[in-house]
Amino acid sequence: MAEPRKFRVEVCFSPEEFDLYKQEYKAVVAIDVLRATTAICTAFQHGAEKLIPVSTIEEAREYQGKGFLVGAERNGQIVEGFDFGNSPYSYMGDFVKGKTLVLSTTNGTKAINRAAKSHDVYIGALVNLDAIIKQFIDHPTDVLLLASGWQGKFNLEDSICAGAITEALINSRKYMSDEDSTIASLFLFQKARDNYFGFLKASSHRRRLRNLNLNEDIKYCLTPNQTDVIPVYREGALVNLAS
Amino acid sequence: MAEPRKFRVEVCFSPEEFDLYKQEYKAVVAIDVLRATTAICTAFQHGAEKLIPVSTIEEAREYQGKGFLVGAERNGQIVEGFDFGNSPYSYMGDFVKGKTLVLSTTNGTKAINRAAKSHDVYIGALVNLDAIIKQFIDHPTDVLLLASGWQGKFNLEDSICAGAITEALINSRKYMSDEDSTIASLFLFQKARDNYFGFLKASSHRRRLRNLNLNEDIKYCLTPNQTDVIPVYREGALVNLAS
Repeated sequence: MAEPRKFRVEVCFSPEEFDLYKQEYKAVVAIDVLRATTAICTAFQHGAEKLIPVSTIEEAREYQGKGFLVGAERNGQIVEGFDFGNSPYSYMGDFVKGKTLVLSTTNGTKAINRAAKSHDVYIGALVNLDAIIKQFIDHPTDVLLLASGWQGKFNLEDSICAGAITEALINSRKYMSDEDSTIASLFLFQKARDNYFGFLKASSHRRRLRNLNLNEDIKYCLTPNQTDVIPVYREGALVNLAS
Repeated sequence: MAEPRKFRVEVCFSPEEFDLYKQEYKAVVAIDVLRATTAICTAFQHGAEKLIPVSTIEEAREYQGKGFLVGAERNGQIVEGFDFGNSPYSYMGDFVKGKTLVLSTTNGTKAINRAAKSHDVYIGALVNLDAIIKQFIDHPTDVLLLASGWQGKFNLEDSICAGAITEALINSRKYMSDEDSTIASLFLFQKARDNYFGFLKASSHRRRLRNLNLNEDIKYCLTPNQTDVIPVYREGALVNLAS
């Protein structure tokens, strides 16, 4: 008896390359471990009802004018005039419960909005790693893991997170991969898996954040499986799939 | 006493990302292991005087009309009407000696022409690996290793070759790196170094070429240090630096 067709899981290293990959997939997992997608998971974990990802600071200001809670980050820092940036610690607390938040970040929210035009978008990070894996094993579909990168360039932490998801999906025997980017992500994950923090010591973005005294943030972002929320994009905003 | 300033060596995974990296470097090493830059090295090893890389088939046909020896490859195959593609075996023999050749390939010649507009361009491959390394240790400068990729996407073999060059330059203590793409290339090279052929078994482009019965080509392209030529771009054509 022939094996059933396997679904595809592949990794795209940067939103700049998304157009080269996007055709063949039904779903996209947007990944920005340091820190946008980690912060988004944290907001839902603490009861946020919706989160509107916006690409520009201008849009963020418009929402602010309408009374929304708005976060805005560029180059690792809170944009002047906003209450918070993309530190996950900013999204912990009762004040987010039941609220609609708005967020604009350097890389992550752009990746989300770019993919949302054409695909079902899920939010992935190390903090919700096993939840994302379980979702795609229970409901298999062709899925592209979209790393947010850094200003269009490849970054290590998102690629490693993508490699972790890939390995688990392939081990489920429901998925196959054949892109070189996916093979590279798997190798990088296998190298990093025992010590994300140590492996990423040299990474450019970790260095950037360390210079901003964000070591606590980094530790949080690199600790897997702190929540089982799965933020998904529905009609202009992210919501928690389970709610 | 302060250490002298180190030069930068970094890796760009694809010509599509070149604009994100290009500003900071004086030299670019264009790498297309399977097979354009390997074939180019082979042509110079066998005595070619010049090689004109052209981006389009139309340009290639024009040169053919003028009586040049012209190679043209798309998607791994010789383009109809041309004498050869980018198999290194096509460039071995007395017929190339003293000649000006013309070549157009899917990825490699585009990467060369793109970088040549703004940078000193060198041709790198595994077959001339140590020659390229020696050149940049003897004459250090800020250098970007530009992988040709596959139709704009990341590929393994070029990134591994770039990782091999990076490791040697950093070990010389004259160079530093800090891009994540460079760190990833180093890890992939260290994983692959003992057995390029085995490591790349799963790679997408190797599979593509194997389906075209090009296993002999692949073995040749993955065997390091078969020549010490260093093709460089000068006034519209590649020449051998040493000649």
